[in-house]
Amino acid sequence: MGEGGQPIRTTGADMLVDTLLANGVDVCFANPGTSEMHFVAALDRKPEMRCILGLSEGVVTGAADGYARMTGRPAATLLHTGPGLANSLANLHNARRARTPVINVVGDHASYHLALDAPLTSDIECLARPMSNWVRRVKDPADVGPTAADAYRASLAPPGVATMILPADASWGAFSTDAPPQKVLLEAPRPASAETVRKVAGLIRANPAGVAMVLSGAAAKADGLAVAGRIAAVHNVQLFNEVLVAHTQRGRGRVAPRRIPYPIDMALDMLSDVKVLILVGAPEPVAFFAYPGKPGRLVPEGCAVVTLARHGEDLKATLEALRDELGISATLPLPATGAPTDEGEPSGTLTEDAVAVIVARKVPENAIVCDEAATSARRFFALSAFSAPHDFIMQTGGAIGEGIPLSTGAAIACPERKVICLQADGCAMYNIQGLWTQARENLDIVTIIFSNRTYAILHAEMRNVGVEEIGTNARRMLNLDQPALDWVSLARGFGVEAAVATSCEAFAALFDAALSRRGPFLIEARLV
Amino acid sequence: MGEGGQPIRTTGADMLVDTLLANGVDVCFANPGTSEMHFVAALDRKPEMRCILGLSEGVVTGAADGYARMTGRPAATLLHTGPGLANSLANLHNARRARTPVINVVGDHASYHLALDAPLTSDIECLARPMSNWVRRVKDPADVGPTAADAYRASLAPPGVATMILPADASWGAFSTDAPPQKVLLEAPRPASAETVRKVAGLIRANPAGVAMVLSGAAAKADGLAVAGRIAAVHNVQLFNEVLVAHTQRGRGRVAPRRIPYPIDMALDMLSDVKVLILVGAPEPVAFFAYPGKPGRLVPEGCAVVTLARHGEDLKATLEALRDELGISATLPLPATGAPTDEGEPSGTLTEDAVAVIVARKVPENAIVCDEAATSARRFFALSAFSAPHDFIMQTGGAIGEGIPLSTGAAIACPERKVICLQADGCAMYNIQGLWTQARENLDIVTIIFSNRTYAILHAEMRNVGVEEIGTNARRMLNLDQPALDWVSLARGFGVEAAVATSCEAFAALFDAALSRRGPFLIEARLV
Repeated sequence: MGEGGQPIRTTGADMLVDTLLANGVDVCFANPGTSEMHFVAALDRKPEMRCILGLSEGVVTGAADGYARMTGRPAATLLHTGPGLANSLANLHNARRARTPVINVVGDHASYHLALDAPLTSDIECLARPMSNWVRRVKDPADVGPTAADAYRASLAPPGVATMILPADASWGAFSTDAPPQKVLLEAPRPASAETVRKVAGLIRANPAGVAMVLSGAAAKADGLAVAGRIAAVHNVQLFNEVLVAHTQRGRGRVAPRRIPYPIDMALDMLSDVKVLILVGAPEPVAFFAYPGKPGRLVPEGCAVVTLARHGEDLKATLEALRDELGISATLPLPATGAPTDEGEPSGTLTEDAVAVIVARKVPENAIVCDEAATSARRFFALSAFSAPHDFIMQTGGAIGEGIPLSTGAAIACPERKVICLQADGCAMYNIQGLWTQARENLDIVTIIFSNRTYAILHAEMRNVGVEEIGTNARRMLNLDQPALDWVSLARGFGVEAAVATSCEAFAALFDAALSRRGPFLIEARLV
Repeated sequence: MGEGGQPIRTTGADMLVDTLLANGVDVCFANPGTSEMHFVAALDRKPEMRCILGLSEGVVTGAADGYARMTGRPAATLLHTGPGLANSLANLHNARRARTPVINVVGDHASYHLALDAPLTSDIECLARPMSNWVRRVKDPADVGPTAADAYRASLAPPGVATMILPADASWGAFSTDAPPQKVLLEAPRPASAETVRKVAGLIRANPAGVAMVLSGAAAKADGLAVAGRIAAVHNVQLFNEVLVAHTQRGRGRVAPRRIPYPIDMALDMLSDVKVLILVGAPEPVAFFAYPGKPGRLVPEGCAVVTLARHGEDLKATLEALRDELGISATLPLPATGAPTDEGEPSGTLTEDAVAVIVARKVPENAIVCDEAATSARRFFALSAFSAPHDFIMQTGGAIGEGIPLSTGAAIACPERKVICLQADGCAMYNIQGLWTQARENLDIVTIIFSNRTYAILHAEMRNVGVEEIGTNARRMLNLDQPALDWVSLARGFGVEAAVATSCEAFAALFDAALSRRGPFLIEARLV
C-alpha cells in the first residue's frame, strides 16, 4: 500500500485495519452495529484479521483482556456506540486494573449527525474515560491511521486500556496517501534506577525477617519469581501476590508467593509483622472495601512502603539488579517447595474445598487456570503450588462476571493449551453468553461451575455488617434459588456440552473425561 | 418515625427506604454488592418494599423501565459501584430516550476509602451522567433522605432518569432526626400556553392536507389519541407515532397513527408531503443513522416543525385545548377503522410475517405487547390497529437487548395482564438472564423468539453501504449460527418452559396454549 511512493486511495476503515495489522494486532473481538458497517466491510477485505463475535459486549472486552494477558499483545475490540461501550465497561475496568493492553474501537454516528441527537447518541468520551487510560475521537478519514497507531502505543507503554472513537464518516470517507500504515516502534521498558535498587537493598539488609515483597506483572511470572525467590531465600523476605492476581505462573518447581487474602481480617493478619513492604509492579495493597472500625490500609502502622519498580518498568531486570546488588548468585539453587500434606483424593459429598483439591491434583502441565470462583475455591491457590506447572489468571477489578470471557480470550491466545475456568455461579451469570463463543471457536476450555445457588460472598458480608437473621427481602436478593439454574441446559443452549456432578467421585471422573477431550465442556459441581 | 416530634435514631440506609416508601416507590429492582449490604439490611427490615433480583444489571434497569412505563411511577434500582452501573447503562439509555422515570441507587465505597483507589473504585459520576438527567452523590447519613426526595422529584418532573450515589458510610451511618421521611409534592403538569395552541390551530387551518402530528407520551395513549383523532378527522391531519414508541395503546376502536419507519427511504417517503409537522411530546424525528448522501432530518425541505407541547407538559389537556380552539366537539364520533384485508390464518412454512399476523390476530384484550423484534415483526404494528385493545411498548433508544427485561418490568407492574414479548434472537442475547427473573416471580409473559440465526438488520445495513458479497469475517460477525442457539434449552436452564415451532400451525397452537396458561413461556419461532 503506497510503498512505492505512489499515492493510493483508501478509506479510514481500511487504514484502521491496515494499521492494526501492521502492528501485529490480528485478532478483533467484536459486537458490531450499524455505525460500524464500513469497518466490518474493511475487515471483510482483510482475512488476516481474525474476527471473533461475542453475543454481548462484556464477552468482547473480557475476552480481549484474557487474550492480551496471555500474549502480552493487545487485541482490538469493536463496539457499537455509547451503549455498546457501556455494556463492555465492567470488563474494561477489570482489564485496566489488571494493567492489560486493550485497543477499543467504538463506532459512533457520522460527526455531522451528532447535532441531531438521534436516539443512539450519547457522550461516548464521558463513558470511556473512567475505564480507559487513553481516549481519543478520530477527526476525519486521514486521522484514522495516526489515531490507531497512537492507540496501539498507548495500550502498551505502559500497558493499559486505549479507546478510540470512530465516527462513521471518518470510517467511510476516502482519502489519498502515499504513506504506508504506521509501524509503531516501542522503546523497551527500563529497569528502575540504580539508586532505587541500592536503597531497597539497604532496607532488606537492615530489616532481617521484616521485609515483604508484593510481586506483579513480569515479577509474578516464573522467571521473575525465581529471581525474587533467591532474594527471599537468602534474606528471609516474604513474597506475596496481590489480592487479585492478573497473571502468575505456579506449580511444582516454581517459587510460590502467598496471595494477600480478600477477607480483611485475614489480610491484616498476614501482613501484621511486615516492617518494610516492597512493591514490584503493584500498588500498595488496600482493603477491598471499607468496614466500620477497620483500617483501609493493610500494612501495620509504622510499616514503610517502598516502590522498587512500577508497572511499565522492566520488573524482572530490576529484580535481577536487586539480586546482584545483594550479592546473590544468579544460579543459587532454589529451596525445594515442601510437599503438601497428602490429604488423599476427596470422596463422597461434593464441597467447594473438595473441588479445589481435585482440580489442584489434576491440573495438566501447561494448563491455564482462570479463577473466578469467588468464595468457592479459596483453597485452590495455596494448593496450586504443588500442581503441575501452569499459568493462573483471574478477574482483577472486582467487577464480577469475567471468568467465562477471560477464559475464552486465553483459549484464543493459546490454542494448544488446556484452559480450566473455576467459576462461581453468581458471577457466571453476567456474561454466560461467552459460552457460545467457546462453542463457535471450539475452544479447549473446561468450565467448572461452583453451584452453591447463592451469592455466598454477600451472605458473608451481611454477617460482616452485623446481620444475624436474614429476612425475606435479603434472602430474595442474595440467593440464586427458586428456581435453581440448570447449568447443563444453559450450556447446551449455547452449544457447549455439559454434565452435573454431585459427588467427589463423579466430579473427578467428569473432570478426567473433560481433560482427555478437546473442545469446550462445562461441569456443574453441585455443592451441598 | 419521629412524627410525635421526638427525635429518633436512624441510619442513612433506613431513611432511604423510608423516603422511597413515603413516596409510593415500593418496588426495588436489584443486583446488590458488598458496598450495599447496609441498604440490603434496611430493605430487609421493610417488607413493604418488594425487592426483585436481576442476575445482571441490564435486567435490573430494563425491568425498572418497563415497570415505570406501565405504572407512570418510578421503581428504585440498586446497583453496585461503577461496574454495576456500567452494566446497567444501555437500558438506562433506553429509559432516558423513552422519558421514563427511574431512580437509581448506586452504592459506592465509604467516602474516606476512595482515596485509597481500591480495585472497585471508579468515577461513578462520569459514568452516570451520559444516561441520567440528574446525578448527585450523597454527602452524609443526614443527606440521604433529602437526596432521595430530590431524586424522586427529578425522576418525575419531567420524567427521566435520576441517579443517586450512596457511599457506604452515608448508608451505614446513624443520625438523629425528628423529621418524618419527606413526602414530595409534585405540581401537576401544565398544558402548553394558549398562545401556542392558537398558533398551531392557525397552522392547521392554513394548511389543509399538509399537516402531520407526532404523538408521544399521554398523547399516544387511548384518550389522547381519541382527541388527536377528532382533530385529524376534521382537518385531514396525518397522525404519526415516533420511530421507536415508548408506550401507546392500540387495537380496535382506537385511533391508530402510523409509525415513522426505521428504514431511511421509507421514512423520507412517508413524510414527503408534510408541510407542517406538529410535535406533541416528541422531539423532531431524525434519521436513526446517517448514510452517505442521505439527509439526517426526515421532514422535506421547507417543512415547518412546530412544538405544540413538550415532554413534561400536560399533553392530553393541550390536545383538548387545540380541539376546542378548532371548534371540534369533544364527542364527535370517531371514524371507524376500516377492517384489514382478511388474508386468512397463515399456514405452512413459518415466516416472520406469518408470526406477526398470527400474533396480531390472537392478542388478548388488555394484553401488553413488548416489541423488540427489530426487523422481524415490522408488519405487526400496522396489523395491531385491528387487534383486541392492548398496550404497546418497545425499546426506544436503539440499545438492543431490552425486550426481555422490559417485558419483565411490565409484568411486575401489571400482574393481571398478559405480556407478549416479540423478541429478535440477536437482541435477546444481551439480557437473556431476565428469563430467570420471569421464572422466579412467575410472571405471565409469553416470549416469542424470532429465530433467524442472524443480525438481519446488519445484513440490510451492509447492503446499504454497498456490500454485495459477504465474506468470511463479515459472515462470522453478522450470523448467529455455528452453532445455532437452542432456545428451548436456554429457557429451561433459566426455569422457563419453552417449545419450538417450525410451521404456522405449530406456532399458532403453541401460542394458543401459552395464552391459556399463566406464567412465563418461551416459543422459539424458527424461521426459514
